[in-house]
Amino acid sequence: IVNLSSCFLQGILERLDAGEIVIGDGGFVFALEKRGYVKAGPWTPEATVEHPEAVRQLHREFLRAGSNVLQTFTFYASEDKLENRGNYVAEKLTCQKVNEAACDIAREVANEGDALVAGGVSQTPSYLSCKDKAEVKGAFRKQLDVFMKKNVDFLIAEYFEHVEEAVWAVEVLKESGKPVAATMCIGPEGDMHGVPPGQCAVQLVKAGASIVGVNCHFDPDTSLETVKLMKEGLQAAKLKAHLMSQPLAFHTPDCGKQGFIDLPEFPFGLEPRIVTRWDIQKYARKAYDLGIRYIGGCCGFEPYHIRAIAEELAPERGFLPEASEKHGSWGDSLSMHTKPWVRARARKEYWENLKPASGRPYCPSMSKPDGWGVTKGARELMQQKEATTEQQLKELFQKQKF
Amino acid sequence: IVNLSSCFLQGILERLDAGEIVIGDGGFVFALEKRGYVKAGPWTPEATVEHPEAVRQLHREFLRAGSNVLQTFTFYASEDKLENRGNYVAEKLTCQKVNEAACDIAREVANEGDALVAGGVSQTPSYLSCKDKAEVKGAFRKQLDVFMKKNVDFLIAEYFEHVEEAVWAVEVLKESGKPVAATMCIGPEGDMHGVPPGQCAVQLVKAGASIVGVNCHFDPDTSLETVKLMKEGLQAAKLKAHLMSQPLAFHTPDCGKQGFIDLPEFPFGLEPRIVTRWDIQKYARKAYDLGIRYIGGCCGFEPYHIRAIAEELAPERGFLPEASEKHGSWGDSLSMHTKPWVRARARKEYWENLKPASGRPYCPSMSKPDGWGVTKGARELMQQKEATTEQQLKELFQKQKF
Amino acid sequence: IVNLSSCFLQGILERLDAGEIVIGDGGFVFALEKRGYVKAGPWTPEATVEHPEAVRQLHREFLRAGSNVLQTFTFYASEDKLENRGNYVAEKLTCQKVNEAACDIAREVANEGDALVAGGVSQTPSYLSCKDKAEVKGAFRKQLDVFMKKNVDFLIAEYFEHVEEAVWAVEVLKESGKPVAATMCIGPEGDMHGVPPGQCAVQLVKAGASIVGVNCHFDPDTSLETVKLMKEGLQAAKLKAHLMSQPLAFHTPDCGKQGFIDLPEFPFGLEPRIVTRWDIQKYARKAYDLGIRYIGGCCGFEPYHIRAIAEELAPERGFLPEASEKHGSWGDSLSMHTKPWVRARARKEYWENLKPASGRPYCPSMSKPDGWGVTKGARELMQQKEATTEQQLKELFQKQKF
Amino acid sequence: IVNLSSCFLQGILERLDAGEIVIGDGGFVFALEKRGYVKAGPWTPEATVEHPEAVRQLHREFLRAGSNVLQTFTFYASEDKLENRGNYVAEKLTCQKVNEAACDIAREVANEGDALVAGGVSQTPSYLSCKDKAEVKGAFRKQLDVFMKKNVDFLIAEYFEHVEEAVWAVEVLKESGKPVAATMCIGPEGDMHGVPPGQCAVQLVKAGASIVGVNCHFDPDTSLETVKLMKEGLQAAKLKAHLMSQPLAFHTPDCGKQGFIDLPEFPFGLEPRIVTRWDIQKYARKAYDLGIRYIGGCCGFEPYHIRAIAEELAPERGFLPEASEKHGSWGDSLSMHTKPWVRARARKEYWENLKPASGRPYCPSMSKPDGWGVTKGARELMQQKEATTEQQLKELFQKQKF
Repeated sequence: IVNLSSCFLQGILERLDAGEIVIGDGGFVFALEKRGYVKAGPWTPEATVEHPEAVRQLHREFLRAGSNVLQTFTFYASEDKLENRGNYVAEKLTCQKVNEAACDIAREVANEGDALVAGGVSQTPSYLSCKDKAEVKGAFRKQLDVFMKKNVDFLIAEYFEHVEEAVWAVEVLKESGKPVAATMCIGPEGDMHGVPPGQCAVQLVKAGASIVGVNCHFDPDTSLETVKLMKEGLQAAKLKAHLMSQPLAFHTPDCGKQGFIDLPEFPFGLEPRIVTRWDIQKYARKAYDLGIRYIGGCCGFEPYHIRAIAEELAPERGFLPEASEKHGSWGDSLSMHTKPWVRARARKEYWENLKPASGRPYCPSMSKPDGWGVTKGARELMQQKEATTEQQLKELFQKQKF
Repeated sequence: IVNLSSCFLQGILERLDAGEIVIGDGGFVFALEKRGYVKAGPWTPEATVEHPEAVRQLHREFLRAGSNVLQTFTFYASEDKLENRGNYVAEKLTCQKVNEAACDIAREVANEGDALVAGGVSQTPSYLSCKDKAEVKGAFRKQLDVFMKKNVDFLIAEYFEHVEEAVWAVEVLKESGKPVAATMCIGPEGDMHGVPPGQCAVQLVKAGASIVGVNCHFDPDTSLETVKLMKEGLQAAKLKAHLMSQPLAFHTPDCGKQGFIDLPEFPFGLEPRIVTRWDIQKYARKAYDLGIRYIGGCCGFEPYHIRAIAEELAPERGFLPEASEKHGSWGDSLSMHTKPWVRARARKEYWENLKPASGRPYCPSMSKPDGWGVTKGARELMQQKEATTEQQLKELFQKQKF
Repeated sequence: IVNLSSCFLQGILERLDAGEIVIGDGGFVFALEKRGYVKAGPWTPEATVEHPEAVRQLHREFLRAGSNVLQTFTFYASEDKLENRGNYVAEKLTCQKVNEAACDIAREVANEGDALVAGGVSQTPSYLSCKDKAEVKGAFRKQLDVFMKKNVDFLIAEYFEHVEEAVWAVEVLKESGKPVAATMCIGPEGDMHGVPPGQCAVQLVKAGASIVGVNCHFDPDTSLETVKLMKEGLQAAKLKAHLMSQPLAFHTPDCGKQGFIDLPEFPFGLEPRIVTRWDIQKYARKAYDLGIRYIGGCCGFEPYHIRAIAEELAPERGFLPEASEKHGSWGDSLSMHTKPWVRARARKEYWENLKPASGRPYCPSMSKPDGWGVTKGARELMQQKEATTEQQLKELFQKQKF
Repeated sequence: IVNLSSCFLQGILERLDAGEIVIGDGGFVFALEKRGYVKAGPWTPEATVEHPEAVRQLHREFLRAGSNVLQTFTFYASEDKLENRGNYVAEKLTCQKVNEAACDIAREVANEGDALVAGGVSQTPSYLSCKDKAEVKGAFRKQLDVFMKKNVDFLIAEYFEHVEEAVWAVEVLKESGKPVAATMCIGPEGDMHGVPPGQCAVQLVKAGASIVGVNCHFDPDTSLETVKLMKEGLQAAKLKAHLMSQPLAFHTPDCGKQGFIDLPEFPFGLEPRIVTRWDIQKYARKAYDLGIRYIGGCCGFEPYHIRAIAEELAPERGFLPEASEKHGSWGDSLSMHTKPWVRARARKEYWENLKPASGRPYCPSMSKPDGWGVTKGARELMQQKEATTEQQLKELFQKQKF
């Protein structure tokens, strides 16, 4: 194990400007839900205070797998969101404590290797309930204060369905003077108001983002399509920015505009959709060929998926991640197996071409996204901002006869 | 969080004799392979020495999910196996150190809650290479020495394809005076010499096992079929023993006698086969109804799968596991979701009936096990004992023109 | 086109005794249902009187495809069955007229080529409603009278679920002095009373059948398994008979004991299960290798499926059927296609290995047979003889709370 | 059986102008290939001379199923096409004879019921080999001469991949003074030169077509999408025409621009894609709702598919087709079945919601169209006009290193 950190003491933009590949990390809420520390539904990160050892261990696994960035586990950690889910969170878990603990843990692990710490903000209930710009920005600023106090290396505005809110987030983060990355959880059809990916990218860069792209909601292939549209939008507008992609580790060819949320399998039946390490190697290569240099993952990405990115791009990067000491490239650890037909799997061609069976002959291969029966008007209302409280939704629901 | 350990200070047999349900843990080699600490192929547990924090965290997660037993991570930790894989294991990782570290970690975490520590042995290369009974038993005895020194609570002989070797293991473990459980990795067709499950069970109980069943190699449904045959065999022989099942968390309706090893997806393309938490709830119920009281999992079982056992059997056990504080029964944590069609998933009926799509329309639902082209004679040779060294296999391979 | 009929003026037994392959015909009720002349549900053959041209044309297509036997279209044409369905059948369509017309049409077409005419009887409502042996035999004898008057070449008792009734049929047909073939619509589990295939075969041969086998209800693979069991039964009993198979042209790996009737797709959604011509070539080869020499088809078999049998066995038979003038062996008629990638399909290897997609990503690959929720007792009642009238069934239905 | 012909003696345009639904017929080449009279590859209609009884019977079945139009079986019957395939066609089968026989047979059957006869032309090898406009038009004119001599009721230019050729065909047919319909075998992406469907429709109407739409190459859903684009194109151009759709009876969600030709299953492995009668009822309803009034089918459509159109639209049309005397609406002929669970299938809701299984667990649900590895330039060359002879293709093939 060679500690490479000394060679990489530069910041995120220095690395990207120099043409380096930066490997992101994977999805915390899904991984920690399976490990027992995050509740599906609220998806809030109080584990940073309640079970720091579990968060720390996951950071370590991603670091070991090759991540160059450790994102603070501050997803949905805005004050309004944590309060919203108040019944789940013990009162002492203030927004500040959760965010501070997240920064401390990330930094502790980052110091063990070659990694930067990125502070992250994501979309807020305030925006969805039509709070004004000042109030929404206030929510981001509270988190930013913690990130500045803890001196993270750079900032990410991620998981935004509405470019308007994403722009507000970038504007707030930009106040810090630190580099800002911005990723939206949209597909090729664009944001929830219908702004196409190319325009989203342009607005984000104009607002101050140095890195733009997508995260979550769609599978690797669909996400790369979206980033491609962003790239084209930027080119047309003669703007420059680094590209970033952090997709799902679930196959979602059957998603609608809203992504995997609307799939009937979300969030407790997604197993058959989990991508293999070989799918990820193909994704990493395709992302690289498209010019993306910040390559990571989101929900569903486990440490071995991140390792697959690092292994695929090892020729370009010049080294393997630590965790590869426990992994043979393209299955070659099987070359010693006692059965000849298992040994025959110790080669790239085999895994590259395998079409893995689901073992589920009574299940279909595609789903119809839910909510298709809902009238278009009602969906748009809800996806935008009008329907926020339980009560409002119920009334809407009754009126529209869903 | 209520510490329940004080109420459960009894041993494994006291618990089972009293009719209690004992929940096992999940699969370490697969989970730690994905986390970056175990190498597929060798599948050896040197992580107990190299990365004790990773092993400790996984034990904790299983404990938190409801496991009543923590198995020492000593799978394939016999001296002959570790030596066999010598090139992977730094020289100081002696068999003794690996086994001792495993015991220490398991005990440390077990003390944090309501859990027993079980020392485990599994099949050996020595047996497969026709070493004599004394030598094979010697390998087990070396591990047993550590287990006795570290004073584990009981012993498990698991993952045996040949009942003959399993019997030898039970005989050795029995020397300790501690309770012994024995599980074979066989399906309804029986062991690799064709001994049917019922007879295997009879032999194991006669050798001294108080608990018998199956682990690994087959999915929950198939495994329960096998345990049912064991139960019938014991009844016919008028023998009594507790029943145990620790199956795969992969769907394997398309397996042959050898189980999932022969599936083309083994071990790096099994993702679409991963079972959901709802599959596990059905399994737990079915196992319970069949009279099985030691219910756990093997490869593929993550902490949330173990939690699903504990939640399904909460009415019988009278309590939920700690990790259920982050999980709503049957998806009810979705009841606050902003979209009505997602809220509609917050109910048992929904998840119980969902047929999850794979999102993989270019993949089949079933595979043909590999090695079917191999002549039957050659397969049997290999599955038995004659072909053990790389060289012998190569010669065999050439002769048979696989 | 060479008229080969002159060389083949021998009877069915002479041909089979000489080791010749005899190719049967395909399924009339399914083919004519799709063409608009048979009603699904009753499945009765009044088309012989109502639309003789349609029946004649289908016979011709089978003859042209290679059939050596034309079965009179007298399926379900026993008097009790036709009366049962009286509301569907104009009053003048007496049993006698329907059977006579069937014989005339078959003979007319048989004379155009190398084919024998076989008169066929099938299971009766009388048996299912517990009429006594004399009455059931009477129904068969009425049809036999017509067959004798019209001088068919031999007789087939086909589509029997109960070997008892099949034996009665054979006994009646045997009175004629003509050769008798008998096929049951059973799978490897045996008849509806649980008599295994081997015993069924023995009883049929002892009753006088010279040819035994299966027809309908199961796909080619399953049917061949059943015939294999019959063959073994006969061998064990030291009896000799020719073997015959006329399976479905639908894939039915997911059937229960009752065959395709219980599949949710029966009878109006079976399309995705239709076998290809290549499936049939594999079936023909496998049947031949198993020693079956009377090889045909049942429901779902269209003329091109019969042609596939004749083409596969052309090397053994020494000639191709007439319809092969419009068919290249193994797709070679594509060798002139303008696109190279379509031309690449003009070879055996391509079609032999193709795994055809369904184009139905929202559908599963397997179904659960219906009626599994029905209590076992009720099913058996119904499958045996107690519940015959609509009224009885309703009462049974209510009592059992299906 | 009521002969309704007397009420419907009007021409095609009178019917459509009056708002009547006109039901087309199904696909002859595929149906007759399966019956043994057409060779896949050439797909030429010499059966009109060689086996008129087979062609006549198929016409009758479509008439009986509800077709209001019988198309002469003159697909690919242009002189250049028949000569091209000269080795397959006996020399006396001149273009004229084949076309004349086709007209005679269609008229004979049309006179038996309520049907118009339509003479059809389709794309020519001459166009693909870059012959000039005069020569291509000459080929159409030769067929038109026969249609005029035989006095067909109207004319159809169908199965064109290039709108330029389709326009030429319409111009020729228009010389006759008879109504002209024009359908292209294109999908939503438009013709092989990239002309979008809307523009194709505009050009065809401007050239004189009174009815426009699509036939062949794509499944019902995709075809309706294409017709919708045509409708929008016409509306934008303020042109009026009747709409027509005659799609495949195969599911093809996985097609590329070229349609089902490029699917690996074409043409001998398409069985699992065959649509059910219920799929057709949905198609008929959707087509009607879209404003299409000439509704028929192409390859794969059997008589029972046409009957399904007639049954779905019976409320609008006021009557059922003759063949419905052998068909219960939505499966109600099963209401007398002896098993309660089969009787339960005698209702619309059942068949409407059934997701039929393929019985093929080793097959995927989608295919990748062939030829995707071919360089784009080479594909376009071939799809356009440059590569026509076997020799040219070979050279092209070698140059491009397909």
